Amino acid sequence: MEDINLHFTGDIHAVSIAHNLLSALLDNHMQQGNSLQIDTRQIVWKRVVDMNDRALRNIVVGMGGKMQGVPREDHFMISVASEVMAILCLSDDLDDLKKRLSQIIVAYTREGKPVTAGDLKAQGAMAALLKDAIKPNLVQTLENTPAIMHGGPFANIAHGCNSVRATKYALKLTDIVVTEAGFGADLGAEKFLDIKCQKAGLKPDAIVLVATIRALKYNGGVDKKSLSNENVEALKQGFVNLEKHIENLHQYNVPVVVTLNHFVTDSEAEVAYVQERCEAMGASFAISNVWESGGEGGLDLAKVVLDTLDNKQSDFTPLYRVDESIEAKINAIAGKIYGASEVHFTKKASKMIKQLESLGLDKLPICIAKTQYSLSDDPTLLGRPTGFDITVRELNVSAGAEFIVALTGDVMTMPGLPKVPSAENIDIDVDGHISGLF
Amino acid sequence: MEDINLHFTGDIHAVSIAHNLLSALLDNHMQQGNSLQIDTRQIVWKRVVDMNDRALRNIVVGMGGKMQGVPREDHFMISVASEVMAILCLSDDLDDLKKRLSQIIVAYTREGKPVTAGDLKAQGAMAALLKDAIKPNLVQTLENTPAIMHGGPFANIAHGCNSVRATKYALKLTDIVVTEAGFGADLGAEKFLDIKCQKAGLKPDAIVLVATIRALKYNGGVDKKSLSNENVEALKQGFVNLEKHIENLHQYNVPVVVTLNHFVTDSEAEVAYVQERCEAMGASFAISNVWESGGEGGLDLAKVVLDTLDNKQSDFTPLYRVDESIEAKINAIAGKIYGASEVHFTKKASKMIKQLESLGLDKLPICIAKTQYSLSDDPTLLGRPTGFDITVRELNVSAGAEFIVALTGDVMTMPGLPKVPSAENIDIDVDGHISGLF
Amino acid sequence: MEDINLHFTGDIHAVSIAHNLLSALLDNHMQQGNSLQIDTRQIVWKRVVDMNDRALRNIVVGMGGKMQGVPREDHFMISVASEVMAILCLSDDLDDLKKRLSQIIVAYTREGKPVTAGDLKAQGAMAALLKDAIKPNLVQTLENTPAIMHGGPFANIAHGCNSVRATKYALKLTDIVVTEAGFGADLGAEKFLDIKCQKAGLKPDAIVLVATIRALKYNGGVDKKSLSNENVEALKQGFVNLEKHIENLHQYNVPVVVTLNHFVTDSEAEVAYVQERCEAMGASFAISNVWESGGEGGLDLAKVVLDTLDNKQSDFTPLYRVDESIEAKINAIAGKIYGASEVHFTKKASKMIKQLESLGLDKLPICIAKTQYSLSDDPTLLGRPTGFDITVRELNVSAGAEFIVALTGDVMTMPGLPKVPSAENIDIDVDGHISGLF
Amino acid sequence: MEDINLHFTGDIHAVSIAHNLLSALLDNHMQQGNSLQIDTRQIVWKRVVDMNDRALRNIVVGMGGKMQGVPREDHFMISVASEVMAILCLSDDLDDLKKRLSQIIVAYTREGKPVTAGDLKAQGAMAALLKDAIKPNLVQTLENTPAIMHGGPFANIAHGCNSVRATKYALKLTDIVVTEAGFGADLGAEKFLDIKCQKAGLKPDAIVLVATIRALKYNGGVDKKSLSNENVEALKQGFVNLEKHIENLHQYNVPVVVTLNHFVTDSEAEVAYVQERCEAMGASFAISNVWESGGEGGLDLAKVVLDTLDNKQSDFTPLYRVDESIEAKINAIAGKIYGASEVHFTKKASKMIKQLESLGLDKLPICIAKTQYSLSDDPTLLGRPTGFDITVRELNVSAGAEFIVALTGDVMTMPGLPKVPSAENIDIDVDGHISGLF
Repeated sequence: MEDINLHFTGDIHAVSIAHNLLSALLDNHMQQGNSLQIDTRQIVWKRVVDMNDRALRNIVVGMGGKMQGVPREDHFMISVASEVMAILCLSDDLDDLKKRLSQIIVAYTREGKPVTAGDLKAQGAMAALLKDAIKPNLVQTLENTPAIMHGGPFANIAHGCNSVRATKYALKLTDIVVTEAGFGADLGAEKFLDIKCQKAGLKPDAIVLVATIRALKYNGGVDKKSLSNENVEALKQGFVNLEKHIENLHQYNVPVVVTLNHFVTDSEAEVAYVQERCEAMGASFAISNVWESGGEGGLDLAKVVLDTLDNKQSDFTPLYRVDESIEAKINAIAGKIYGASEVHFTKKASKMIKQLESLGLDKLPICIAKTQYSLSDDPTLLGRPTGFDITVRELNVSAGAEFIVALTGDVMTMPGLPKVPSAENIDIDVDGHISGLF
Repeated sequence: MEDINLHFTGDIHAVSIAHNLLSALLDNHMQQGNSLQIDTRQIVWKRVVDMNDRALRNIVVGMGGKMQGVPREDHFMISVASEVMAILCLSDDLDDLKKRLSQIIVAYTREGKPVTAGDLKAQGAMAALLKDAIKPNLVQTLENTPAIMHGGPFANIAHGCNSVRATKYALKLTDIVVTEAGFGADLGAEKFLDIKCQKAGLKPDAIVLVATIRALKYNGGVDKKSLSNENVEALKQGFVNLEKHIENLHQYNVPVVVTLNHFVTDSEAEVAYVQERCEAMGASFAISNVWESGGEGGLDLAKVVLDTLDNKQSDFTPLYRVDESIEAKINAIAGKIYGASEVHFTKKASKMIKQLESLGLDKLPICIAKTQYSLSDDPTLLGRPTGFDITVRELNVSAGAEFIVALTGDVMTMPGLPKVPSAENIDIDVDGHISGLF
Repeated sequence: MEDINLHFTGDIHAVSIAHNLLSALLDNHMQQGNSLQIDTRQIVWKRVVDMNDRALRNIVVGMGGKMQGVPREDHFMISVASEVMAILCLSDDLDDLKKRLSQIIVAYTREGKPVTAGDLKAQGAMAALLKDAIKPNLVQTLENTPAIMHGGPFANIAHGCNSVRATKYALKLTDIVVTEAGFGADLGAEKFLDIKCQKAGLKPDAIVLVATIRALKYNGGVDKKSLSNENVEALKQGFVNLEKHIENLHQYNVPVVVTLNHFVTDSEAEVAYVQERCEAMGASFAISNVWESGGEGGLDLAKVVLDTLDNKQSDFTPLYRVDESIEAKINAIAGKIYGASEVHFTKKASKMIKQLESLGLDKLPICIAKTQYSLSDDPTLLGRPTGFDITVRELNVSAGAEFIVALTGDVMTMPGLPKVPSAENIDIDVDGHISGLF
Repeated sequence: MEDINLHFTGDIHAVSIAHNLLSALLDNHMQQGNSLQIDTRQIVWKRVVDMNDRALRNIVVGMGGKMQGVPREDHFMISVASEVMAILCLSDDLDDLKKRLSQIIVAYTREGKPVTAGDLKAQGAMAALLKDAIKPNLVQTLENTPAIMHGGPFANIAHGCNSVRATKYALKLTDIVVTEAGFGADLGAEKFLDIKCQKAGLKPDAIVLVATIRALKYNGGVDKKSLSNENVEALKQGFVNLEKHIENLHQYNVPVVVTLNHFVTDSEAEVAYVQERCEAMGASFAISNVWESGGEGGLDLAKVVLDTLDNKQSDFTPLYRVDESIEAKINAIAGKIYGASEVHFTKKASKMIKQLESLGLDKLPICIAKTQYSLSDDPTLLGRPTGFDITVRELNVSAGAEFIVALTGDVMTMPGLPKVPSAENIDIDVDGHISGLF
């Protein structure tokens, strides 16, 4: 566990260094004559570091005179927010990786022409730095089951799931492959299905939707301190949230298995209520006790999943087609998944849509950056909000990763450390035993 | 070879991330109330990245308002210039590593009090990040001979040789251990002997001093285009440079073997001249043809070394004792090794000496940053310059690495990329074969 | 005219230098030990220059090391946006000036305590620099009529009218004093009446409200190219805007005289329509032809004003009392003057209201920064909009000028130059004749 | 006195605003497309403010994105360091002023081509802003004698004396005109004679050299506390300084009158010694008691000057001709005036000389920035140092002022405020009486 949390196989370091090589080539190009006419005020390629380091969010670089670079504003993100990470996870092979890396837009000229990593001849060296990182990593669980861990793209400005290559490797090695997709199903599942599966030609046979009684009661209005008390009434109020997620996933024509991540405070009545409602909606249901009993605790769920695979038909259909207009694709997600009445585009967003169309970059899947605390873009709206609007503040294109990012709120790509950083408590003894990591 | 030149075992990444963790903790401390009263104008801990990136030499960080860090000037260095790298190479074990990490001075208060990594409680987490990097790496040569590669501290602001642990491991595993010390012997050998050996209690039995006929002729005044022509007269003029190096090394009471890195253009007369002069000075002599014949080409040299070990007595004595004054130690190096008449200290340097004395940090070995192109601090003075002065412009303390750096000229800790970066020519094919790396 | 447009009597220069003295004292205080514990991230006092200079909007100052100031972000505004200008215009005398200057809040400590110009002992020297600038300036019109010009505070973040001292001087020298208040009457008149008159105990006897047929037709939906064509229908549509302004001013219990700034394209029917409607509302009416005939062209208006002074009663009552709550005062202006349904306060604004209350700075008049293009805060809503909300984004306090600024949109305090700056066309010949100024 | 020390006639404000207009036009040009291809790293035109404001020495401007200017490093100087001030003082009339303003070099392109104020079409508007400032100002002394005060260029990076126009006006109005030239005669007189007189065709008839017994004893080695004690021996030692100045001025073929600024502690023997030595060298001599008796105290000196004018012949010859090489001109000043053995040019200085030659800007007078505390460039060398070298670190051209600045040390163009700024003690009462100014 420690090794995975420290440097692991060095993939993040490789992504960081490949990313920052592109940054160095970009600034060096401007230093050496700027023949591509890059506008110092329109550089969109930020630097990265694998560290929560707030002071690097907004910086000025290139100071000190003629031999020290060209002055400009810059920003650092954490490495997992790098488009290189998203590309790594979506590439078929080294050739596809290079093609995608070369497509990355790093800046614009004064005339609005995009400048790419390919214009800077960066893709070969970047790919060379990623030659091992592109290979999926085989690890084992605490029970010595093999597992593949590969890639960690951000789940807001990127698609948030593991690599296409890892999934395809796994599919060659075993009968059943389980892939995790983080955040709520409105975000994680939607992006997994519409971006990764649609892109890679993957067709899932079943979806396991994880819920907790506690979260449902919270969505039903119970405050955080009272979540341990039985409250079927609140559960009913909050179930609408899960109901919406089940309805959403059914839109993809894939069978849904709901599992409750079981807590000791869940009452039998509460569990029974959820089971009944799920099954009434046509979803399968199972309790998961993995937290308590390890693999044993997941056997029931496993059986229900196997049963679903045997008996229910999947006919995976993405929510939208990538060749629809940007507005149509965003409207599809916001309307069908979030339940929004209408989508507003700010002036800036509308302008960017026109720009993407003129650059021929509009026929890409959409990656919406939205709060994970609500189905809407307002984190305080719990349950199943209706009658709300979604505002798209800004659009960015990840031309290498081949998706368009639509921002509905502030996105933090560089976290800060807290008052007492956990680093203060980490230690290692002379024999190499680490403490304080968890 | 490629793997070593790309990410190798990840040691540099680990050093980078441990280094930058300290940076993040430092800025976070100021953000969270700055109880240590760090002066934003007196922060000496720079950030690092493993990339030649000129634009990061001089930057401003912490902009954007109250929640985005504290504004200040900052600088990036390449990772090998990190004091963490020097510490890694000089530490006995994880405990010593932690002790040294905690001693790093990161900043000063307005009152001039040093603030250390220990004050920021950083050493435990930093050491945890270095837990694998501290282990020496076993590699093999092209002829499949095992070799240990470990650590790469800068040879100007640090001591420039591999880790103490690597050398000690090797000493346990084999009869004869060869360690490389880069740059001229006035820099590489001096630092190896006075810093690393003195510190670690190592006592070399022989020193192999590598020379070339071409370099000696260059030191004798021949221009670079004519170095292939036989010119015994110029060789005589230039031999004074090698003569000084041999004299210098004899001051350490260790037998010296001179080897010529042989070129096809070296004439017999030239080789004979060098051999004669070396042997007249009491040094052994051998030709090395490794460049042409691999291991075979080094057999003669190996025999001479073995012969030296058998027949000559070594009584290693460092040039100075660490408990002498800073001026005395610098005078010893400049006078006995460089051949300088006098050492000037600028006001700034003198002030720093007083500060180090008042902080009790003066009883440390000295690491002089000087040009490698001349025995003096003027790169244009060839041969064996005399009657020159050395100016110490500035002093810094690496309180964790436990040496004092004396700067005699501009030191570049962040290189820039050239007009056509070699990255532009690097490529990788779909099967993972890299081209353009060399 | 030229002299007034160049340096005039130097009042703006004096304001600039007094303002920047405070900036220099502030940065010097931090440099010299920062005993007041000013937070470099919470400095609200910007620098000024009497120049449209976009590049100075966002800057970093204090770079270069320990002796060169403390690094921080800063901003320049144009001089007329200086709080010193507003203070100059609202001060009774030199003592009041000093008192107000000392009240200026320049920064906050980490704990949120305000730091004032008085804390920096700046008010005496600032007032000394303003000793001549505080004196009203006597000029003459092109017809050699005496006029007093004094002070030019911004009309959005400040109250936008001439100095109290100028008005009071004029009242001692003549029977009737006319004061201009710029922008629409919802801004200029409101601030003149509620801030300047309420503060200085001035009680206007009549208000002249200036309108144009063209603007009324524009408010009635006519596009800018067609404003020269007679269009009584559109005039009727647009008159509601003037109607609202007349109603607004009647709320102050001061007789209103409407005057049309006459254009040759105004038709008789259009003029007649406006006159009829104004008089129906109880306002007097007169045509002004000053643009064409100079003073002669204003005689009709003058007679109507004299007649109004003789025959109508004024009982000036401000819209709100300064000791009401901040929200109440803003609601009064937004509701009664703008016609808004509701006022929203952003989180930031609400937080600032609480802070002002806790600092005892809430019992001050309100200066709303709002677009002059609409009665609402949306510049595209013409005529007499209804059913709209006003959003207060942010609040600032001008503790020396003694008013609270409520921002309803982006406020530009530092303009930029256009593609072809008018400076390029300005010239002066050897005899001192200036050309290109207009 | 106060008015002169505050805003005076606004000349400095006019210089500041004309200077900063050029800055704004420069940044605006880059913002609007940068058709002149200005290199953001090679901008030499700094901004100015009439304030000691250390935090503005090193700044970054143009931050905030595409609409907020182009990011770059910048610097503020105090207004008197502006080249506009030097130009104002050297211009014949408005046409010459415009010509010189247009010649100002503000930046260079990447190819090293200079960009001038004329390229930015700035000279007309700048001259318009200076239309009153170019006129000499008539003031009166405390004894109501008329005097002309006009212009205050820096005495290190500029020529340090009043305007050509002021001197020429005075010459038309009276028989005898006295002009002050600040700092030591090696700086002030040299620049007055070689730059201003040579340029303007002025031919002085006599030079009054002001000395003090105290300063001569200080140059003779007496410490500052003992200067009040009679010490003829030290005076003899220190007289060599005055001797050198007299010799220097005689090189210009202008009669010299030495005057002692008399102190009550000067002994008769000391005065007698100085008088004897001066007269032995062919200089006239007089005591000045102006500090004690006002105009009366200067009568003796006045008589000696009149006598000199009547009886001694002046044949003013500048030290060098402007069409000599830059090195020759600097050698002339350093050798003949300072008494240096040799002049060293740093690499940077030599490179700049070549650049100036290639730009055809080498045939200009030289303005050396040197310490005023010694005849040498080392402030600690008192008396009449010999055998020393002068190092020219850097050269700049003031192409509008038409002189070349040679820097021999650090030049401070933006002072800082002290721990307790005098502003803290300045006050003004309600009647306008200022206190604390002196």
